[in-house]
Amino acid sequence: MKQLLIYALVASVVVFPSLECFPQTISPKETATAMLKEGMTKMQAYDMLSELTAIGPRLSGSENYEKAVKWAKAKMLSLGFENVRLNPAQIPHWVRGKTEFAEAVHGNGKKLPLTICSLGGSIPTPMNGITADVIEIHSFDELKKPGIAKGKIVFFNRPLDPTRLNTFEAYSDASEQRTKGPSQAAAAGAVAAIVRSMTLAHDDVPHTGSVMYDEKFPKIPAAAVSTNDADALSALLKERAAVHVTLKLDCQQLPDVASASVIGEIRGSQFSDQIVLIGGHLDSWDLGVGAHDDGAGCAHTLEALSIIKRLGLKPKRTIRAVLFANEENGLKGARAYTDSEAKVGKHIACIETDAGGFSPRGFTVADPVTLAKIQKWSDLFALAGAGEVTSGNPGADLLYLAKLGIPAIGFRPDSQRYFDYHHSTHDTLDKVHPRELELGAVAIAIMAYQLSENGL
Amino acid sequence: MKQLLIYALVASVVVFPSLECFPQTISPKETATAMLKEGMTKMQAYDMLSELTAIGPRLSGSENYEKAVKWAKAKMLSLGFENVRLNPAQIPHWVRGKTEFAEAVHGNGKKLPLTICSLGGSIPTPMNGITADVIEIHSFDELKKPGIAKGKIVFFNRPLDPTRLNTFEAYSDASEQRTKGPSQAAAAGAVAAIVRSMTLAHDDVPHTGSVMYDEKFPKIPAAAVSTNDADALSALLKERAAVHVTLKLDCQQLPDVASASVIGEIRGSQFSDQIVLIGGHLDSWDLGVGAHDDGAGCAHTLEALSIIKRLGLKPKRTIRAVLFANEENGLKGARAYTDSEAKVGKHIACIETDAGGFSPRGFTVADPVTLAKIQKWSDLFALAGAGEVTSGNPGADLLYLAKLGIPAIGFRPDSQRYFDYHHSTHDTLDKVHPRELELGAVAIAIMAYQLSENGL
Repeated sequence: MKQLLIYALVASVVVFPSLECFPQTISPKETATAMLKEGMTKMQAYDMLSELTAIGPRLSGSENYEKAVKWAKAKMLSLGFENVRLNPAQIPHWVRGKTEFAEAVHGNGKKLPLTICSLGGSIPTPMNGITADVIEIHSFDELKKPGIAKGKIVFFNRPLDPTRLNTFEAYSDASEQRTKGPSQAAAAGAVAAIVRSMTLAHDDVPHTGSVMYDEKFPKIPAAAVSTNDADALSALLKERAAVHVTLKLDCQQLPDVASASVIGEIRGSQFSDQIVLIGGHLDSWDLGVGAHDDGAGCAHTLEALSIIKRLGLKPKRTIRAVLFANEENGLKGARAYTDSEAKVGKHIACIETDAGGFSPRGFTVADPVTLAKIQKWSDLFALAGAGEVTSGNPGADLLYLAKLGIPAIGFRPDSQRYFDYHHSTHDTLDKVHPRELELGAVAIAIMAYQLSENGL
Repeated sequence: MKQLLIYALVASVVVFPSLECFPQTISPKETATAMLKEGMTKMQAYDMLSELTAIGPRLSGSENYEKAVKWAKAKMLSLGFENVRLNPAQIPHWVRGKTEFAEAVHGNGKKLPLTICSLGGSIPTPMNGITADVIEIHSFDELKKPGIAKGKIVFFNRPLDPTRLNTFEAYSDASEQRTKGPSQAAAAGAVAAIVRSMTLAHDDVPHTGSVMYDEKFPKIPAAAVSTNDADALSALLKERAAVHVTLKLDCQQLPDVASASVIGEIRGSQFSDQIVLIGGHLDSWDLGVGAHDDGAGCAHTLEALSIIKRLGLKPKRTIRAVLFANEENGLKGARAYTDSEAKVGKHIACIETDAGGFSPRGFTVADPVTLAKIQKWSDLFALAGAGEVTSGNPGADLLYLAKLGIPAIGFRPDSQRYFDYHHSTHDTLDKVHPRELELGAVAIAIMAYQLSENGL
């Protein structure tokens, strides 16, 4: 009690002290403000992201991914997290190979080199490649016309809708071309698929991402083409003479690898078996270094817990950081975590950060009852710029937990630039702004602590 | 009437047509949505900014500023604005010169070159420079100690507060060091002033800006130093041996120049003498090309009117674009506009955009009555990401109009990156994101049209 009085006295002089012995009696607004001050003064998130991205790309199954696991575990230990451990998962091991070649040749002899990359999970072409006529498609319905794609390379070229304020909605509408397009094309007799990169930018780099083969149809090779070259190919096709494309890919699927997600926590001081989860994914695509996707989410997660620890807060419930394995091409980390951990402790809520490291705008909450509760805290999140609490789904890593009825919350930073970098060589550290990133960690710390203190 | 029916029919099929003959009967939400679709599909703001910044820096009095005036007038005419005209203003003509040199020398002989630039409006040093001992100051109060600055160079080194979410508040708190610091130093007997750059970034470029000499005290030369060199100089001073600095500047103030702000409008269909003003400033500092400050505001202003025109809307009140002269170092354009135009038409509201071209967050409104009215439209602005309508002042160009009691509204984009570029060589076109910029134009178009249709 005497100690508490001293804390109260300290708090009255230095209003928001950054102390191990942070007083527990201050208001939620004072706590949130202290988190903001602590985060924006120390700015640790960007340093962590800098270390993580220095490892390089972190595709599941790669050596770099295993380095990232070691880094994450060591970082959690150095930050003083408790119960730091690995959560085993068998993860896929797809490798890009060295040959990624595509060239369009017009009937009049005009050649157009295409900047492409294999889609993640694609099968390779034969060594000499595939050469076939090309047909441009904007919707799967067009493939229903009998014979339209028979023996051809299908070129899916529906752009993201630029009029959607939330670029994730534009991505969500268009990305079926990449995930399902190759099998839809195969069902119509196509021999390969080329997909317009899933970005609103007009640029010269291809953006990869998973293809999800439907086992009912033959697997065909699939590549992404840069948006500028997609436009050029479309223009060539409008010249109304046959255009054929040669495509060569030597990517391959290797046997699964034993790997892990990484877990650490601050144990709850009153209800330690009740868990508030914060998570991002530790893997990335093999192009770029996954600075926004999802290095930023890892940095958010680590720094959110670290801010709470640095302030000496003692959350009532356990706040747990999970850096998931294999979000990009399998969700095996999320699956394994859910299978092994969902019933060990009671997850009262999960927060996912997998939408980049830009300025916070708010959170999405899937179910209306939880949404209504959390919206009452909007003014606290607004201290870090994250006051917009709206209806919506989190990311993929919470899919299985949400199916168990656990409230799932998505962190939502500004989305305008995200798909410029997403899944491409452009997703590098310099695209992340230190203050924007740190504000995200602060917003998530505020959310997690509110959930910890109040439950749901 | 028949025509109106046809429009309604068209609107029912193609919900948001981009037509000269846009139906006037649709709801505010439909109109705002149509603006979003028009803006984000055509994306004209970035092209305009690209043209404007291609002129180069546009400091008042420079040839480039006059080129910008010609460009703006021609652009308004080409966009079909009405009553396009120049609003004359006598503007200052300060030039940076070629010599900007500073070096610190420690008592032990160690030399530290300092990356500096003259502050706008500074007097030059004598040709051989000024060499004097340095004293580091964090608040004006420290200058009250008798003799503390006598014969010295005062180094103002109070950083911007990183814990402020709104970086403009951090800037506002710190920038008195630049605007008033040199005269405060002179009052205490100093011979020159060096001011830490007004940025939250840790970088190697100096950020300029106006010094405002107090006529009561001698004018002394004043320069900005990069934040990294400010930190290095501060570290050198901590070594507790005398440090002297040599400063050489050959900037100069030339006679005022006859120039102009640029005006164009869409005449009101019902109350043409009632004006809704949208404005940014056409001048920039001479470092960088003023892409965010305030090329973005010019592009916003032009594109906001252009969106309204392209949709064929017929606003009830006149919507006027004003690209002000000389915001950066004199406000002579705003002064002249207010003197000549404020009483000609009735300005029912003014919107200023001078906070960069980043993702829209909202608007600030100065007086509480207007604020309450405008907050009711938040859902419309939120369609372009600008739903946060809060209390606050606009920028400097509306100062004189606001003093006349005219409601003044400030457009507020995300502020995290703004001062990284502000008033420095880093303020270039590549720092502006086309979608973020266009969304700002859409948000402002929605605001202006609401004001035009509803009054205040």
